[in-house]
Amino acid sequence: MTHLRLQISNALSSVAGPAGLSPGEFDRLMARVSEAIGTIKRQRSEGSLPFLDLPRDREVLEICRSTARRCGDHENFVLAGIGGSALGPYALFRALSHPFHNLLDGSRRRTPRFFVLDNIDPDTVGALFEVANPSRTLFNIISKSGATAETAAASLVIFDALQKSVGGRWRDHIVVTTDPEKGDLRQLAREEDLAALPIPPGVGGRFSVLSSVGLFPAVCLGLDAENLLAGAEAMADLCLEAEPRENPAALLATLLHFFDTRRGRPIHVMMAYADRLLPLADWWRQLWAESLGKRHTNDGREVFLGPTPVKALGATDQHSQVQLYIEGPQDKVFIFLEAKRFQREVTLDPIFGHLSSLEYLGGKSMNALMAAECSATRQALTDAGRPNLTLEFPEISANFLGEAFMLFEIATIIAGDLYNVNPLDQPGVEHGKILTYRLMGHKGYEEA
Amino acid sequence: MTHLRLQISNALSSVAGPAGLSPGEFDRLMARVSEAIGTIKRQRSEGSLPFLDLPRDREVLEICRSTARRCGDHENFVLAGIGGSALGPYALFRALSHPFHNLLDGSRRRTPRFFVLDNIDPDTVGALFEVANPSRTLFNIISKSGATAETAAASLVIFDALQKSVGGRWRDHIVVTTDPEKGDLRQLAREEDLAALPIPPGVGGRFSVLSSVGLFPAVCLGLDAENLLAGAEAMADLCLEAEPRENPAALLATLLHFFDTRRGRPIHVMMAYADRLLPLADWWRQLWAESLGKRHTNDGREVFLGPTPVKALGATDQHSQVQLYIEGPQDKVFIFLEAKRFQREVTLDPIFGHLSSLEYLGGKSMNALMAAECSATRQALTDAGRPNLTLEFPEISANFLGEAFMLFEIATIIAGDLYNVNPLDQPGVEHGKILTYRLMGHKGYEEA
Repeated sequence: MTHLRLQISNALSSVAGPAGLSPGEFDRLMARVSEAIGTIKRQRSEGSLPFLDLPRDREVLEICRSTARRCGDHENFVLAGIGGSALGPYALFRALSHPFHNLLDGSRRRTPRFFVLDNIDPDTVGALFEVANPSRTLFNIISKSGATAETAAASLVIFDALQKSVGGRWRDHIVVTTDPEKGDLRQLAREEDLAALPIPPGVGGRFSVLSSVGLFPAVCLGLDAENLLAGAEAMADLCLEAEPRENPAALLATLLHFFDTRRGRPIHVMMAYADRLLPLADWWRQLWAESLGKRHTNDGREVFLGPTPVKALGATDQHSQVQLYIEGPQDKVFIFLEAKRFQREVTLDPIFGHLSSLEYLGGKSMNALMAAECSATRQALTDAGRPNLTLEFPEISANFLGEAFMLFEIATIIAGDLYNVNPLDQPGVEHGKILTYRLMGHKGYEEA
Repeated sequence: MTHLRLQISNALSSVAGPAGLSPGEFDRLMARVSEAIGTIKRQRSEGSLPFLDLPRDREVLEICRSTARRCGDHENFVLAGIGGSALGPYALFRALSHPFHNLLDGSRRRTPRFFVLDNIDPDTVGALFEVANPSRTLFNIISKSGATAETAAASLVIFDALQKSVGGRWRDHIVVTTDPEKGDLRQLAREEDLAALPIPPGVGGRFSVLSSVGLFPAVCLGLDAENLLAGAEAMADLCLEAEPRENPAALLATLLHFFDTRRGRPIHVMMAYADRLLPLADWWRQLWAESLGKRHTNDGREVFLGPTPVKALGATDQHSQVQLYIEGPQDKVFIFLEAKRFQREVTLDPIFGHLSSLEYLGGKSMNALMAAECSATRQALTDAGRPNLTLEFPEISANFLGEAFMLFEIATIIAGDLYNVNPLDQPGVEHGKILTYRLMGHKGYEEA
């Protein structure tokens, strides 16, 4: 069975010199992470990490499929959600769809155009309805709590546009994805008899991509949800059972935590060498930041800790960020996402070979150039004493995307243990929410 | 005359407490930055900062216009370029065009669909030609040196696709933008009689948006290039003549440099509270990183310094990064980009008011919610001891975008002076380029 492979040699002292991890340090860290994995297995058996079991729940996939069938065909699929409700589905869409999906002819496209309303920018929201006729659109409103301000505001705009467009049939254009029992969105679904999908309690937004949050859009967009779940399940098995040195989640969490806390490298740059994988890095950016950026440890000490994740795109950002990455402060560690195979092979025509800037490219492929640039940048970083890891995707498929989601989620829980913080909460955003409610006149939040 | 306004009070000790700048420190820094501005004025008069004079050069705008007229109408405009050749034009396009420009009907759109080929991902490049027929496409190939590997590779694909599609008329579909005299792309333009636009010598990629690099796409896309230049010119005058406390470039550079070097805040987060402004933050991310991330000072000391710019989007990233920003390490300073007015006003229908999560929103506008969230996040950061600045855009117009480009460019040169590094070079990317050439078999770069 082929899996994603994590290459760590450029982070070890044998290759990276003093910037890298020594064999003795490595041994100690592997012993430490074994404990963390033991803790996770215990928590799983106690039911406190339900995201781990999402891939085994094929029933929810059937519910998503039957809901999609009942909704029928639409020209557009608009997802209204923010944070984990948007980043996961968008990562799926971009990784697995045609790069210009929304511009394809309907006959070529076969599935709806896909839009994500994950902001409250009036220009974007207003403009959306100029290109997506509500009468030909399915709206998937996603909010775990059912009270997210941005998504609530988007809902009001959607309800209004639909009622003006299709009157009483507006209900046929809505699917809500929310808590199975609680919250305003669930209540509204009951009252108005809207199609509704569950987000399992205990699965937070940033760990929800393998629930109906990601599965329903995937099904509607014709993506291979079955293999997405299969990949995730295989990776969960690997990351909970393999011994640490063969365990990509354990290695990733351990090395990133080590470089942050022991080597002064708090900036974790995920550099995707494939356009399709950049939104995955953006999804990870929430997962890593929101899970680990914490004021207090589990035992209540005030620490203000957490690495800062940064997403970057290769080869593009070689012409934007790599100058800083190579010559700037020694405060970063790098995770390359490398696709070993693309769907297309693009050959470079050997024309104008009298010009030296074109001659060496003619007859080669763009694929080879991409691979060379990834290797060269990695080598240049290593030569400059900058440790780096590479996560290899044999190809960009539903299966490997499922593996990636699960690998990063488990790595995040392991890192939470290593940092000694709760990776599942986000207390720091409460104050801003309350200030927003107050400014907007939400009852019960008046100035004290 | 209204300009962009930089609000700095949340970075001063009077508001921000000990995290902020004290009045005494502020006085000293203002004296120091006056020197830096004096240096810039001298360098300008010596001709070594030609980007400052781009807005006065209206002749190049006329050349862009006449070139655009000669090229005629096309369904698609494809820009092939990377780094500064792509980020500036894309920032312009997104700020000033319809948010879903490429999806509008031709009659509504009136200008070509816009695509940027700024990567060598075979899936993206291959797919582009499935949605953009070369026979109906104008290709603008941008490379200052004329030898950029990624752009060279894209050119070979473009030439091939055009020759297969329109035969000998391929030349009518190409405009190159490159050095006025030197380089392979200029030579090719001469040999093949291609339309060609100049990038003034001495204007590096990341400072080139107000040259034909940005102006030609702007003209072809129907954007207001005249006011773009007028805004930039007005801001150049302000930033070179105003006394430091009234000078947004001086204040921005000074404060960001101070928080990096004196308060341990090397991560500079630019958080745009408008979808249209996020690509501007991405353009700035190159400018700030590549200009200031340097191994050596001007006097040759090895320092490995430079802040790490990060782009973020409000309100979206409140649900991704703000937990870290509020509770994580005290290693960040924030620059908000706030639009005081959007083009559209989106009203929230007062429906389902029996639900508390909808009740407070009904009858308000999405615009008010966006403003409230920006204020709330800024206040929450300030309350958490995290200094922040706000650059206010009275509206998102060509004029203010021109102001923003020039403000950030001048701030970068000032910051180069404060950090004592050369903001105009990028020696750190050479090693990776050579490794790529070697892997690709470029003559003269064989393994030693």
